[in-house]
Amino acid sequence: MSASAPLPPEPSTGPEARLDLGRRQRLGMVEAIWGEHKSAEQLATILAAMQRGGELALATRIDAAKAEAVRERLAATTGLRYHPRARCLTLGDPATAQPAHGEVVVLSGGTSDLPVAAEAQLALHWHGIDCRLLLDVGVAGLQRLLDQLEQLRRARVLIACAGMEGALPTVLAGLLPQPVIGVPVSVGYGVSAGGMAALHGMLASCAPGLTVVNIDNGYGAAMAALRILSDSGQA
Amino acid sequence: MSASAPLPPEPSTGPEARLDLGRRQRLGMVEAIWGEHKSAEQLATILAAMQRGGELALATRIDAAKAEAVRERLAATTGLRYHPRARCLTLGDPATAQPAHGEVVVLSGGTSDLPVAAEAQLALHWHGIDCRLLLDVGVAGLQRLLDQLEQLRRARVLIACAGMEGALPTVLAGLLPQPVIGVPVSVGYGVSAGGMAALHGMLASCAPGLTVVNIDNGYGAAMAALRILSDSGQA
Amino acid sequence: MSASAPLPPEPSTGPEARLDLGRRQRLGMVEAIWGEHKSAEQLATILAAMQRGGELALATRIDAAKAEAVRERLAATTGLRYHPRARCLTLGDPATAQPAHGEVVVLSGGTSDLPVAAEAQLALHWHGIDCRLLLDVGVAGLQRLLDQLEQLRRARVLIACAGMEGALPTVLAGLLPQPVIGVPVSVGYGVSAGGMAALHGMLASCAPGLTVVNIDNGYGAAMAALRILSDSGQA
Amino acid sequence: MSASAPLPPEPSTGPEARLDLGRRQRLGMVEAIWGEHKSAEQLATILAAMQRGGELALATRIDAAKAEAVRERLAATTGLRYHPRARCLTLGDPATAQPAHGEVVVLSGGTSDLPVAAEAQLALHWHGIDCRLLLDVGVAGLQRLLDQLEQLRRARVLIACAGMEGALPTVLAGLLPQPVIGVPVSVGYGVSAGGMAALHGMLASCAPGLTVVNIDNGYGAAMAALRILSDSGQA
Amino acid sequence: MSASAPLPPEPSTGPEARLDLGRRQRLGMVEAIWGEHKSAEQLATILAAMQRGGELALATRIDAAKAEAVRERLAATTGLRYHPRARCLTLGDPATAQPAHGEVVVLSGGTSDLPVAAEAQLALHWHGIDCRLLLDVGVAGLQRLLDQLEQLRRARVLIACAGMEGALPTVLAGLLPQPVIGVPVSVGYGVSAGGMAALHGMLASCAPGLTVVNIDNGYGAAMAALRILSDSGQA
Amino acid sequence: MSASAPLPPEPSTGPEARLDLGRRQRLGMVEAIWGEHKSAEQLATILAAMQRGGELALATRIDAAKAEAVRERLAATTGLRYHPRARCLTLGDPATAQPAHGEVVVLSGGTSDLPVAAEAQLALHWHGIDCRLLLDVGVAGLQRLLDQLEQLRRARVLIACAGMEGALPTVLAGLLPQPVIGVPVSVGYGVSAGGMAALHGMLASCAPGLTVVNIDNGYGAAMAALRILSDSGQA
Amino acid sequence: MSASAPLPPEPSTGPEARLDLGRRQRLGMVEAIWGEHKSAEQLATILAAMQRGGELALATRIDAAKAEAVRERLAATTGLRYHPRARCLTLGDPATAQPAHGEVVVLSGGTSDLPVAAEAQLALHWHGIDCRLLLDVGVAGLQRLLDQLEQLRRARVLIACAGMEGALPTVLAGLLPQPVIGVPVSVGYGVSAGGMAALHGMLASCAPGLTVVNIDNGYGAAMAALRILSDSGQA
Amino acid sequence: MSASAPLPPEPSTGPEARLDLGRRQRLGMVEAIWGEHKSAEQLATILAAMQRGGELALATRIDAAKAEAVRERLAATTGLRYHPRARCLTLGDPATAQPAHGEVVVLSGGTSDLPVAAEAQLALHWHGIDCRLLLDVGVAGLQRLLDQLEQLRRARVLIACAGMEGALPTVLAGLLPQPVIGVPVSVGYGVSAGGMAALHGMLASCAPGLTVVNIDNGYGAAMAALRILSDSGQA
Repeated sequence: MSASAPLPPEPSTGPEARLDLGRRQRLGMVEAIWGEHKSAEQLATILAAMQRGGELALATRIDAAKAEAVRERLAATTGLRYHPRARCLTLGDPATAQPAHGEVVVLSGGTSDLPVAAEAQLALHWHGIDCRLLLDVGVAGLQRLLDQLEQLRRARVLIACAGMEGALPTVLAGLLPQPVIGVPVSVGYGVSAGGMAALHGMLASCAPGLTVVNIDNGYGAAMAALRILSDSGQA
Repeated sequence: MSASAPLPPEPSTGPEARLDLGRRQRLGMVEAIWGEHKSAEQLATILAAMQRGGELALATRIDAAKAEAVRERLAATTGLRYHPRARCLTLGDPATAQPAHGEVVVLSGGTSDLPVAAEAQLALHWHGIDCRLLLDVGVAGLQRLLDQLEQLRRARVLIACAGMEGALPTVLAGLLPQPVIGVPVSVGYGVSAGGMAALHGMLASCAPGLTVVNIDNGYGAAMAALRILSDSGQA
Repeated sequence: MSASAPLPPEPSTGPEARLDLGRRQRLGMVEAIWGEHKSAEQLATILAAMQRGGELALATRIDAAKAEAVRERLAATTGLRYHPRARCLTLGDPATAQPAHGEVVVLSGGTSDLPVAAEAQLALHWHGIDCRLLLDVGVAGLQRLLDQLEQLRRARVLIACAGMEGALPTVLAGLLPQPVIGVPVSVGYGVSAGGMAALHGMLASCAPGLTVVNIDNGYGAAMAALRILSDSGQA
Repeated sequence: MSASAPLPPEPSTGPEARLDLGRRQRLGMVEAIWGEHKSAEQLATILAAMQRGGELALATRIDAAKAEAVRERLAATTGLRYHPRARCLTLGDPATAQPAHGEVVVLSGGTSDLPVAAEAQLALHWHGIDCRLLLDVGVAGLQRLLDQLEQLRRARVLIACAGMEGALPTVLAGLLPQPVIGVPVSVGYGVSAGGMAALHGMLASCAPGLTVVNIDNGYGAAMAALRILSDSGQA
Repeated sequence: MSASAPLPPEPSTGPEARLDLGRRQRLGMVEAIWGEHKSAEQLATILAAMQRGGELALATRIDAAKAEAVRERLAATTGLRYHPRARCLTLGDPATAQPAHGEVVVLSGGTSDLPVAAEAQLALHWHGIDCRLLLDVGVAGLQRLLDQLEQLRRARVLIACAGMEGALPTVLAGLLPQPVIGVPVSVGYGVSAGGMAALHGMLASCAPGLTVVNIDNGYGAAMAALRILSDSGQA
Repeated sequence: MSASAPLPPEPSTGPEARLDLGRRQRLGMVEAIWGEHKSAEQLATILAAMQRGGELALATRIDAAKAEAVRERLAATTGLRYHPRARCLTLGDPATAQPAHGEVVVLSGGTSDLPVAAEAQLALHWHGIDCRLLLDVGVAGLQRLLDQLEQLRRARVLIACAGMEGALPTVLAGLLPQPVIGVPVSVGYGVSAGGMAALHGMLASCAPGLTVVNIDNGYGAAMAALRILSDSGQA
Repeated sequence: MSASAPLPPEPSTGPEARLDLGRRQRLGMVEAIWGEHKSAEQLATILAAMQRGGELALATRIDAAKAEAVRERLAATTGLRYHPRARCLTLGDPATAQPAHGEVVVLSGGTSDLPVAAEAQLALHWHGIDCRLLLDVGVAGLQRLLDQLEQLRRARVLIACAGMEGALPTVLAGLLPQPVIGVPVSVGYGVSAGGMAALHGMLASCAPGLTVVNIDNGYGAAMAALRILSDSGQA
Repeated sequence: MSASAPLPPEPSTGPEARLDLGRRQRLGMVEAIWGEHKSAEQLATILAAMQRGGELALATRIDAAKAEAVRERLAATTGLRYHPRARCLTLGDPATAQPAHGEVVVLSGGTSDLPVAAEAQLALHWHGIDCRLLLDVGVAGLQRLLDQLEQLRRARVLIACAGMEGALPTVLAGLLPQPVIGVPVSVGYGVSAGGMAALHGMLASCAPGLTVVNIDNGYGAAMAALRILSDSGQA
C-alpha cells in the first residue's frame, strides 16, 4: 500500500502524557488499569510509563496469554507479577502495609465466582487490607452460611459475590449489621446470563442498606471497602 | 351523528357462542375469566351465559367498583360473591368437595403480596383443595421462616409469592423437597417495579427444581398445584 | 351477593403475628414499612401493632392523602407525624440519640430530587445520625460543586442523589476519598424516564469504589451509611 | 516475573471444604455441578472430592473437549462416563433404582432442542425415574402431537421443551390435565435468539397451570418432576 | 399574564395545509387519522378540513368521551359516526362498494381482544371488503378452532388477533395455506403486559410465512389485507 | 399528629441559594427549568428567585393547569407568559434580539409531534433565533417533503421531529448537506410507545452525520442549533 | 470411561420418525430445515430420510464448511446443491414449475443485506415463483429508489430487506399499493446491532399495511409471498 | 454436488450498478463503506468499482487481516492505504484541501476509546478538516480536563468519545458553548457492555444542547462536524 500520503500520521496511544498521578494522593488508591479492551502493546506502554513515574500499578481482566505477551515486552522490568486466579497483573510491591487480620471477608456462592472474588481480595491486599475468602456458601444450602455467622460477625466489611439469582447478599444483610457490598457475577445462563438478574436481585433487595457495584466488579467492591475502612480510621 | 349507514352493525361480544364448556371435563378446572381488561358489561354477559349453562365461574382481577357494577347488572342472580382481598368474583358453590387439611401452603414475604396469595388460596378452595396462608416470612428476617420449617414439611405443595428480589422460593426450595411454585409479585420500585426482577431471580435460582409462573399469577400457581395433586390421586 | 358460602373466610392481613421485632437488636435499625403498595387500612393496622409492641416505626412513600387517611384511623395514637417533603410517616420519638454534626452529607443535582434526598435525611435523623442536605450541585454547572469541596471533605459519608444521566456521584467519587453512595432518581424523560439511565451510569462509573442502591431508595442509602458509621464505632 | 512478593498466596478453589453433602438427604437429589463456566481443572478437583466423599455426581453443560480434558485428569477414576447428546458427565452408578415405565415424557418440537431434552431425560434416569423422549411434535404440524394424545394421557408428568415461539407447552396444557413443565430453549434467531421469546410465551400462556423453568434448564425441569413424583409417593 | 410580547405568535396546527390528498389515488386507501395523541380540537380541525376537501376519513383510537367532544365541535357536520366497539370515528359514506362475502376472517382468542378485531373489521368494511369476526378460538381450547377449519379454508385472508402468548396465528398458519396476518394485542399482565410477548411469539413463529403488524394495529392488518386483495384483483 | 418532635425541621427547597447564574455568560443560554416533576409551588419559588436575580427564565413541560397554579402564586409578577402549544412558561422579555429570517427550520411528520416542535421553536425565539415550522411532511407521503426541498436548502440548521419509526431525519439528511438534528417523539403505540423505536431508528440511520437528542427534547435540539449558529458567528 | 452402566442408551435424533410429510399437501410448501443450530451429522441424517421419503428439501443458514461436511456424509446422494450467497442447501429439483416473470421483487439497501435477500429469492425460485433482486436502493440516496418506481409498479409482491434504521419498507409502502413485506436484517452496530432497531422501525411504520417477519427471515418472507400469490390464483 | 439445475444463477453483488455517485455533490461527503459485515471479496469489488468511477473511498471497521486480504485482491491498485489505529482503508488522495489548525478537537477518556476517536479524526482529515486528539481526560480525574479548558475554547466543534458511564460530554457541554457531539463507546462490562449505558447517559444529559450519534460511530460524528463547519462557511 501507498506509504506517502497527505494525511497526518496516526495518533500515538498518548497515555504517557496524562497519567492520573494525583489519584494516590487524592483518593488513597493505586492507579488501576482495566485490561480487557487493551492490547498487550498498549498495556506494556502504560506499565512502562508508570514505572518510570515511580507508580505502582494494578491491571485487571487480563488472561494468561495476554499477561505473557505483556511480560515479553517488559522483559527487563522487575516487579511485574501475574495472578492467574484474579486475572490481574501487578507492578511493584506495596511497601510497608501491615495487614490486620479479619478486616474484610469476601464471600461467594460457588467456584464459578472465584475470579471475581479473587480480584477483590487481591485489590485489597494491594492496598494493605487483610481479606479472607469464604467460598461455597450459596443460599441453596443455607446451613453452610449459618455455620459461619459467628466468624462473619467479626469482619469490618462483607463483600458478597453471587451469580444466578444473586440472593446471597440479601440473606447476609438480613443477618448481620456490617456494611455489605454486593457484587453480581456474570455467571449464569438464560435469564441470568451476563449477571443482570443477579444485579437486579441485589438492587431490589428487601434487606436494608445493601449496596451494589457493577457486574463482575471485584476491584470496585474492594475500593468501596477501602473507602469505608479509611474513613473509619479517620474518625 | 348519522344513524343510518351502509356499514354492517358492530359485532356483539359473542362469548356466549363459544364457552369452553369442555374445560372442566378435560382438565378438571372450573372456567376462569380474567377480569382486568373486561368491562362490567362484558363480565355480566359472560357470567349470565355461564349460569345459564350450569357452569361455575371464577373471575379474577376485579376491583371493588367493577364488582359492584357487575352485581348491579346481575341483581337477580343468586350465588354471586365478591372476595375483596383476592379481588375475585365467584358464581355458584362448588358442591361436595371436602378439603383435607394442610395440602398446600401459600407463603409470602409481606403484606403487599397479599392479593396474589389470596387469589391462589381462593382458587384452590374453589377446587376443593385446602390451603393455608403463611405471611411475613421474607428472607430479610430469616428466622421467621426457619421457625416454620417443621410445619412446612407436612405440606404437599408450596406456593411462594415474593416481590422485590424474589429470593423466598429459592431459600425454600433449598430447604425442603416438595414441589415449590414461585409466584413473582409486581410489588417494588426501580429495578423491581412490575415484578421482572423477582421473576428473573426465581428463574435464575440456584435451588434445583423450582418452577415459576407469570408475575402476579396466583390463579396459575393454584392450577399448577391442582395438576400436581390430581396427578398423585391418579397414581 | 350471597353471604353464606362453603368457602373459608378471607385471610386477615396477619402482619400482627410476625413483626420482625428482632431487627432493631440484630441490625440496629428501626423497622421500616414500605408504604407505596399498602392501603391506609393496612398501614394503620401495622402501625397500631407496632405501637402495641413498643416499637418505633418509619413508613416511606406515603402521599399526603394517604397519610391523612392513616391519621384518621389512628386518631387516638400519639406520636404519629407526617413529613411531607420526605413523604414519610413516623411513629414515636427516637430516644436519646445525640446527633453529631457533619457526619453525612446528602447531595442532589436539582429540586426534583428533593423527595429522595429528604427521605435519606429523615431516615438518618431517625437513627440519630446528623445529616446535611446540599442541593443544586448538578454537574452541568460544575463550579457550584467545586465550591463546596473543602466542606465536603469533612463528611464521613456522602450520599449523592441524581436523575437524568446520574453523573454527580461519579464526579464526586473522583474528587474525594470517602464512601460515596449513589442514589439514582426516577426523574427524567425519554431514555432517563424511571431512573434506569442514572442507575446504569452510576454502576458503570469510571470512579473507583462508588456503590449504588436501587432507584429512589433514599432509605436504603441512609441504612448503608448507618452500617458504615456503626461499623466505625465498633472498631 | 517476580516470584517473591509480600502478597499472600492465591486462594485455592476451596470447594473441597464445603460440599453440600446434605443435599441428597435433605432434598433427595444428587449433587449437580454446572460445568459451563468451570475449567477442566476445577471440574476434576470437584469430582475427585466428591468421589472421596462417596458421593454420586452429575455435571452438566460440558462439551466433548472439556469432558476429555477432565477424563485425562481423572484417569485413575472408575465410574466416570460422558453422555454426548446430553452434554453431561456422570460419576458413579445410582444403585438399586428400578425405574417404572412411562412416568415422565419429555417432548420437543425439533432436533435442535435435543440437548436440552436429553439433559432432562438423563437427570431423571440418574434419579431412578423412567422417562421417554417424544421429538418432532412442533405445533406448526399439529397432527403429529394430536396423534400422540392417548399415549401422553398415561404419563405422570410432561416436560415440554420448545424454542422459537415456544407454543408447544401451551397447546399441551390446554389438552391434558397433568403437570406440564415448560422448558424454553435458546434455539432461534432475531427476536427468538437466546430463548427469551419462548420463555415469555410460556409464562404468558393462556393455558392454566403451566409452570416454567429457566431457558435450557433441562436439569431443573427434571428436578421439578422429581419433586412432584416424590411427593406423590409420600401421600 | 402579559399578553404583549416580542415573541412571534404560536404555530397553528397547520394540518389543513398539507393533507396527503394523493393517498387514495396512490395507495387506494382512505386517509386514516390516528386519534390517540390528538386533542378533540385537533381532530375536529382535521376532520373539517377533510370534509371541505371532499375526503372520507377514518379516525382510530378514540374513546367515547373524545368522540362526543369532537361531535360537539362538528355539530353541523353530516356523515360523522362513532363506532364504540372499534373506538373509531368515520366521516362520510364509502360509496358503491359491494362487499363480497367471506373474503377476510378476523379471529381472536377472547373478548378482551375485541376492540382490535373490530377496528380491523371496520377498516375493511370502510374499503368495501367483507369481513367476518370469529371470536373465542384461543389455543387453550383447541377444539373450538379445529371445528371451524372447513369454514376458514374458504377465506381469502386470515387476520389473527391474540394477546397473552400469541400462539393463535402460529397454529393457524400451520393448518391453512392462506395469507395469515398476526396482530399482537396489548392484553396481558406481567411478561405479556403491553403485548410484547405476543409480538415476539408471532415473529418467532415456527409456522412458515406468517407476517405481523404492530401491537393493537387492527387498522394496519386491514390495510395489509387490502393490499393483498387489490393485488389479486389486478392480476 | 404530634407537632413537637426532636427531629430537625424539613429541608427547604433551597434552589434560591445556588442558581446557576453563570450559565448565560458561560454558555450564552438562558436558564431553563424542567417543569414536569416540579410542583407549582416549587416552580413559583424558583421563578420568583430568578426574577429577583434579574434573570430571564424558560420553564418547559408545564400543562395549562399547572401554569395557572403558578400564575396565581405569582400574581404580582409582570412578564410571566404561558405558551400552551409549547407547554412552556416564560418570564421576562429577551431584549434586543433581532431574529434573522430562515435560520432554522423545524420539521415534523404530523400534528401529534406539534408540542415538541413548538418547544424547539419557542426556545430558539427566546434566544433571538428565527425559526420556521414545517408540519405534515411525514415520509409515508414523500412528495410533501420533496416539494419543500428548495426552500429547505436555504436553512442553516434543520431540526426534524418524528415519532413512530422516526425515518424523517434519515431521509432529510440523505438529501441535504446542512446539520440535521433528530428529535424522537414519544408518540406511538406498541413498539413505538414512548419513542424508543424512533430514537433507535435515528441513531441507526444510514444517513451520514445525523445527530440526535433525547426523546421529546425540543429544548435540547434548539440549544444544539444555538451552539451551531453561535459558533458560526464566531468564525 | 466406563462403558457399562445401568442408564438406558442415549436418544437417537429421531427425526426420521416424524417428518411433517403432509406440509407440502397442506400448505403447498416444501419442507424447510433450519440449519443454524444443527450439526452436519444431524443435517445429513434428516436429508437422507427426506430423500428416502421422496421429498424435496431446503436447508437454510448453512455456511460453506458445514455444507461441505454434509456433502461428504451424503457423497452417494444426487441432487444435493449448495448456494453460497443464500447459504442454503437444496436437495432435488422442483419439477415442472414454469416461473412467470416479474412476480416478486426483493429489494435491499446494501451489499450487507445480500444473504437475506438471496435466501428469499432462492426460496421463491424453489417454489416456482419468479423473483428479481434490486440491490443498493437505500433511503440515504433516495433517487436510486425513485428511479425504479415504474418498474416496481409491475411487481405482484415487494419484499424489502433493510438493516440499520430499516426505513426502506416504510418509504416503499408509502409510494406503492402492493403488498410490502419488510425483512429486518441483523446488520448494524450499537443500537442497530442484531436488527432490533430495523424490526421496530418497520413495525412502527407510519406507512399503512406494511407487514413484517422476523429478523433475517428471508425464507419466511418468501413463504408469505407464496401464500399471497397462491391465494390470488385460487380466486 | 449437482452443477446443473433449473434454478437461475445466484445474484451477483451488484454494487457496481448503483453506487451513490451523487453523494459527494449532494452532501459534500466522500462515499463511505461500512466494512464490518462485508467480506474481503465484496470490499475489493466495491473499491475497484469506485476507482473505475474516479471516486475516493473510505472503508471503516476493517481489521488488519481483512485489510491485508483486500490488498491482495487489489495488488495492482495504487492509492490504497490502511490505517491500523482507525481500522480504516482509504483509496485515493483527497486533493488540495488545506486543513486549518484547531478546528475540531476529539476528546476521549481513555486508551480503550482510541479506535473510535481515531476513526473520527481520519474521517475529518479525509475531508480536509484539521482535527486534534486529546486523550486521557476522563471525569474521574477531572483536573486533567480542567487544565485543557483554555485550549478547548478555541475549537470550532468538540467531539467527545466516552465508554463506561459516558459523563465526559456532559461535563464538557456544561463548561463550553461550542457544539459538542457525544460518541458513546462500546467499551465496558456489565451494565456498560456494548455502550448502551454511555449512550443513555449522553442522551439523558442535564447539559443543554449536547447531541449524540450511535455507539462507536466515529465516522458519523465527523460527518456531523463537517456539516456544521460547511454550514458556517456558507453563511
